[in-house]
Amino acid sequence: MTEILYPKLAVIGCGLIGSSVIRAARAAGVVGQVAVFDASPQARDRIRELGFADAVCDDPSAAVQDADLVIFATPPLAIGEAAAQVAPSLKPGATISDVGSVKGAVAEAFAKVAPAACFAIPGHPIAGSEQSGPDAGFAEMFQGRWCILTPQARTDEAYAKAVERLTDFWMALGSQVELMDEKHHDLVLAVTSHLPHLIAYNIVGTAADLEEVTRGEVIKYSAGGFRDFTRIAASDPIMWRDVFLANKDAVLEMLGRFTEDLQALSRAIRWGEGDKLQELFTRTRDIRRSIITAGQETAEPNFGRKR
Amino acid sequence: MTEILYPKLAVIGCGLIGSSVIRAARAAGVVGQVAVFDASPQARDRIRELGFADAVCDDPSAAVQDADLVIFATPPLAIGEAAAQVAPSLKPGATISDVGSVKGAVAEAFAKVAPAACFAIPGHPIAGSEQSGPDAGFAEMFQGRWCILTPQARTDEAYAKAVERLTDFWMALGSQVELMDEKHHDLVLAVTSHLPHLIAYNIVGTAADLEEVTRGEVIKYSAGGFRDFTRIAASDPIMWRDVFLANKDAVLEMLGRFTEDLQALSRAIRWGEGDKLQELFTRTRDIRRSIITAGQETAEPNFGRKR
Repeated sequence: MTEILYPKLAVIGCGLIGSSVIRAARAAGVVGQVAVFDASPQARDRIRELGFADAVCDDPSAAVQDADLVIFATPPLAIGEAAAQVAPSLKPGATISDVGSVKGAVAEAFAKVAPAACFAIPGHPIAGSEQSGPDAGFAEMFQGRWCILTPQARTDEAYAKAVERLTDFWMALGSQVELMDEKHHDLVLAVTSHLPHLIAYNIVGTAADLEEVTRGEVIKYSAGGFRDFTRIAASDPIMWRDVFLANKDAVLEMLGRFTEDLQALSRAIRWGEGDKLQELFTRTRDIRRSIITAGQETAEPNFGRKR
Repeated sequence: MTEILYPKLAVIGCGLIGSSVIRAARAAGVVGQVAVFDASPQARDRIRELGFADAVCDDPSAAVQDADLVIFATPPLAIGEAAAQVAPSLKPGATISDVGSVKGAVAEAFAKVAPAACFAIPGHPIAGSEQSGPDAGFAEMFQGRWCILTPQARTDEAYAKAVERLTDFWMALGSQVELMDEKHHDLVLAVTSHLPHLIAYNIVGTAADLEEVTRGEVIKYSAGGFRDFTRIAASDPIMWRDVFLANKDAVLEMLGRFTEDLQALSRAIRWGEGDKLQELFTRTRDIRRSIITAGQETAEPNFGRKR
């Protein structure tokens, strides 16, 4: 027996993640009505065709009207403005949340504009794909994934209940939920997600600009490792632009450490210090084993095979 | 009807790739007898147990005796010494080749020690996995993969025939074969394989050394991109140490370009130049599409899902 946790869900920004939230919430039977706004008229038309929302509104304020849960799923830097715009139309007692990869900036934006009678709880489901747009979403997106919520420093019982309800919501969508301070979230994600994306984008750009090696050769022989980076580097450009700008301090901090370590590796190669290389390469193997042990990945020998 | 291309195959160094060559050659029915040497007594015992070779020799010279094709599948830096050691025992007319990821150093080593009556043809099947050792190999390893051969600048017909035969061998194992100059090979692989591995090793090392983020957190939230790097960074430490040392010049050249580009990205983030970020991120998307169009990869939305 599932219980309707939120009689009305509103999703502002309905691309890959926004549309997956709706599909998953419907599949789990935890929402009643669903209203949607997307800034793109083409996307709105497409969402109407896809038919997973009860109402597709041309105005975000209309979408949030009477909603019990409002989820902002726009690119990170657009969340603040969208929240400010709809704030006057929010129902007292509504929970507002989001799905962005940076939480400090959202926490600030929510703190500034959310009415006192609402419960602002920034959130981040760690899930996605290289695809984007409302067609790309799917109901199983959050199954077995972590979702991090970064609640405000409020101690009132009503807020605690709202956090509990939003936790139940994400669990109903198949996720495990973790509560975390937003600053710490942004540091953790800077290393586990933002830096990997930055590096992947960068190496693909470097490879594309070579004169001695053609793009055709890069593509043809990409199975040796490069291909894995191209997948990550095909993620949504606007979303990732916003992530790096919104999490600037943590990203630059991690990037600084990465570059420092890379210089040391470069020096070890130049001077033929094989021991140093081997020591690092042995150490990194352990991390992989821990990930497999923790069940975050299977131990398939799939490198170099088509997936 | 398959034809025996080489009545006797000898494999020197029998780990992941060496044992896969044997399994695949046997499955394809293109070799008669198979003799093996591995520097590790434990590996030799294990290969005897696995039973895929007719003879497991305690001495590499015994293994290459009467062999028509000798394939060196040791870590790259060990190839030169192994080739020098067995050279006096090579049968006139034998083809010697290898499977290493760096070709310049092997070409030099072969040119120095191979008897004039032998055909030295360095080779590199672009295939592998994060696993290592003779247990990890499998017969389908080379199916649908590229194998690059870097023949010497010889124009005699006997050599051309030997190259043709080795081409047939790899095609029988399921590969597409490309001939290339060894210097160019090393440049192409520096960007499509060596640099990606170096960067993956580096970021996993950086993440492991953080004080503010625990290793448990890195593992727990690795699905956001980091996990893909850990797989690559779990590759064989000794083999990769050798690759970077043997292909030093090309790797440092590519690393220099990568670092330069990364500094520019870092600066764009610091100064909030969103346009520059978005331009790069859009450009890198095209490369991914080319890889999918070229059939080097399928377009599955598998980021963040368990594979």
